Amino acid sequence: MFLKGNIAYTPSPEKFEVIESGYLEIVDGLVKGVYKEKPAGVNDADVTDVGDQLIIPGFVDLHLHAPQYANVGLGMDMELMPWLNTYTFPEEAKYKDVSYADKVYSQVVKSLWKNGTTRSVIFGSIHRESTNRLIDMMIEAGLSAYVGKVNIDRNAPDFYMETLEESLSETEQFLKDNVGKSDLVKPIVTPRFVPTCTEELMRGSAELAKKYDVPVQSHLSENLDEMAFVKELHPEFESYGYVYDEFGLFGQQETLMAHSIHLTENEIQLMKERGVWAVHCAHSNANLGSGIMPIRQLLDNGNKVGLGSDVSGGHMMFMPANITLSIQLSRLVWQETNHEQDALSTSEAFYLATKGGGKFFGKVGSFEEGYEADVLVINDDNLGVDGLSLQERVQRFIYVGDDRNVVSRYVRGELLEEPSFDKLVSS
Amino acid sequence: MFLKGNIAYTPSPEKFEVIESGYLEIVDGLVKGVYKEKPAGVNDADVTDVGDQLIIPGFVDLHLHAPQYANVGLGMDMELMPWLNTYTFPEEAKYKDVSYADKVYSQVVKSLWKNGTTRSVIFGSIHRESTNRLIDMMIEAGLSAYVGKVNIDRNAPDFYMETLEESLSETEQFLKDNVGKSDLVKPIVTPRFVPTCTEELMRGSAELAKKYDVPVQSHLSENLDEMAFVKELHPEFESYGYVYDEFGLFGQQETLMAHSIHLTENEIQLMKERGVWAVHCAHSNANLGSGIMPIRQLLDNGNKVGLGSDVSGGHMMFMPANITLSIQLSRLVWQETNHEQDALSTSEAFYLATKGGGKFFGKVGSFEEGYEADVLVINDDNLGVDGLSLQERVQRFIYVGDDRNVVSRYVRGELLEEPSFDKLVSS
Repeated sequence: MFLKGNIAYTPSPEKFEVIESGYLEIVDGLVKGVYKEKPAGVNDADVTDVGDQLIIPGFVDLHLHAPQYANVGLGMDMELMPWLNTYTFPEEAKYKDVSYADKVYSQVVKSLWKNGTTRSVIFGSIHRESTNRLIDMMIEAGLSAYVGKVNIDRNAPDFYMETLEESLSETEQFLKDNVGKSDLVKPIVTPRFVPTCTEELMRGSAELAKKYDVPVQSHLSENLDEMAFVKELHPEFESYGYVYDEFGLFGQQETLMAHSIHLTENEIQLMKERGVWAVHCAHSNANLGSGIMPIRQLLDNGNKVGLGSDVSGGHMMFMPANITLSIQLSRLVWQETNHEQDALSTSEAFYLATKGGGKFFGKVGSFEEGYEADVLVINDDNLGVDGLSLQERVQRFIYVGDDRNVVSRYVRGELLEEPSFDKLVSS
Repeated sequence: MFLKGNIAYTPSPEKFEVIESGYLEIVDGLVKGVYKEKPAGVNDADVTDVGDQLIIPGFVDLHLHAPQYANVGLGMDMELMPWLNTYTFPEEAKYKDVSYADKVYSQVVKSLWKNGTTRSVIFGSIHRESTNRLIDMMIEAGLSAYVGKVNIDRNAPDFYMETLEESLSETEQFLKDNVGKSDLVKPIVTPRFVPTCTEELMRGSAELAKKYDVPVQSHLSENLDEMAFVKELHPEFESYGYVYDEFGLFGQQETLMAHSIHLTENEIQLMKERGVWAVHCAHSNANLGSGIMPIRQLLDNGNKVGLGSDVSGGHMMFMPANITLSIQLSRLVWQETNHEQDALSTSEAFYLATKGGGKFFGKVGSFEEGYEADVLVINDDNLGVDGLSLQERVQRFIYVGDDRNVVSRYVRGELLEEPSFDKLVSS
């Protein structure tokens, strides 16, 4: 099949590749090529012509918390640790009730669909059954994701805590439930973060990740109080990242570390050596007053970097809003460092939210040959685009567009209808 | 008349005043009172019941550039001075053509209406006739604003420059055209900024402001290169603000200074003494990498402060997005200063975008008795507000709402229909 329209994507961070009224060829869910002219012999019946609309890659969100969705936009006047205890843990605890999970997770999945987030990496709650429901809903919707059952066995409220044994056994069952279930939606081992995971839990999680060959996600060096607490818990380690490393959670399997703000030089090097991802969550980091990730330093150093919405520490599921704030914060850093740290360009930040973060999934987020065909069709009629170049139209969509502009989504070549969970959701 | 619904406003920055299913009484365009119960003897026919929707004050935008609207979301990878020369001056020069002004200004006014910005302070272009059209459109729409014809007589491209004589004579004619024309839409003297205004133009502008008793708006200390240029042009002055002060443009009439980022202690004091407003334009300051206004210091010092979208340096006309980024930047400053500079609370930033900035217009932006009845009705059904308190609903609307949620707008008690300019616009 072919999609015909105004194609824009970023094979490299330096610039947008744009083709006006071009053809995107998709074969067996993969991009076959992008052409300026209709290839010889192509039948019109094989071409979906989207007219003057934009065709861009689907967005990749490397960090969000599905069971915090009901708190989005609330409690934005706290720091991490009190925010967790006041807003977050009580809300996440509700997911013991599967019918509550059905109710909210169906909204989360619809919101991902609506906002054009075709790939995401998601924290569930500590509850296996509810997290399984989320996986089933993502499969039903046709969206692609890694989804984790969270592990917590210390320093959390009684109502939101596991024993070491149940945390590990439920995680193993969660992996058995979901490994091999879907090509698009897969489980990920998810120890919440050092403060809430005993050494045994960290080590056991790492063993499960290795045994089932699944990736790992957690949080790293988001907040200074959090880091002081980690230091208190593990004074014998050089710094936070080394705790994860000791217990096998720092790149032994493919690993995402959300936030990664207050890093030491040694940690940055270790993350590079181990291939550990730093996930930049600009909205969350600003909302909670956590700080600004040294994104330029990480990129210059060759570290793996992607973007995350971190809903609900961040309030914007729509990835372009995360692109925009990432650029804005980088421009303020550029100013504050007397232009020593270059700001992110628009194409670079777009790259991070498509092909850059997409690498976590494989060949995802670009329209180069062999990439999985995750595609958004963007109608920007309402954005006043008369006379703009195609590149300017993409820039305007990123800055002032919203979910209204996302009119079609494809994952691996499949057009996704609006999710409806009549069959799955009991309520 | 009465509006019945869920009322929220900020008589003081410290907290939201909320009344569930309350009554807002409006008499002759002014707020008469807010009541928990329907006052005795009130006829149902006098009550507009908006059900479970929110009733909040209209938003106040103290700084935007109408002739930059067609550039919104573009050119966000430059600093101020090259951005002005590459994107802004060429676009503003187009407003010599009144039909172009008609076309874009009609969209600007509709966008203000749509986004619930009931009061705004606007830079036009250097062109009197086009700026007059904007004033006529604002009057027709029923929105309230101060609108200025811009003055430029040095250091701008040939195609966007006036002589001193025409700049002053056209400004005087602009004031004659518009002073007394409308109670809601008024002219404001608008020397662009020191780099583009000769001493004679600044002095002459000040004299006109005094002669016609109108306020003044300009830009102050937005960017370090801009400031270095001002120092080069006027080495005899202690700093930027003192240049305006010498020429009568620093509070001799009520004065707005957009940005006001890189201020000296002496300037902050002088601004306080003179009653000069500092207008915080968070999106613009981040986009252009200008820096962060010391908003906490200004507020603590008792300086006058309001918020501005600064379209198109800023890309968000919707004032809640400016509230949000103002809070976010303040939280990052709070973190960077080891908690020395308190962050803005949600109520405080909401106050700045309503009653705080509204003071520039008089008794505007609150529902206290005697305030002009500028009101928005907000439908937040799509924001998942089941079980939230009224205050949480306001917070969620600010963080994740958009123009879709703004369903009605009143200015001075008048319900405003969507603007249509069939009569005014020639094209």
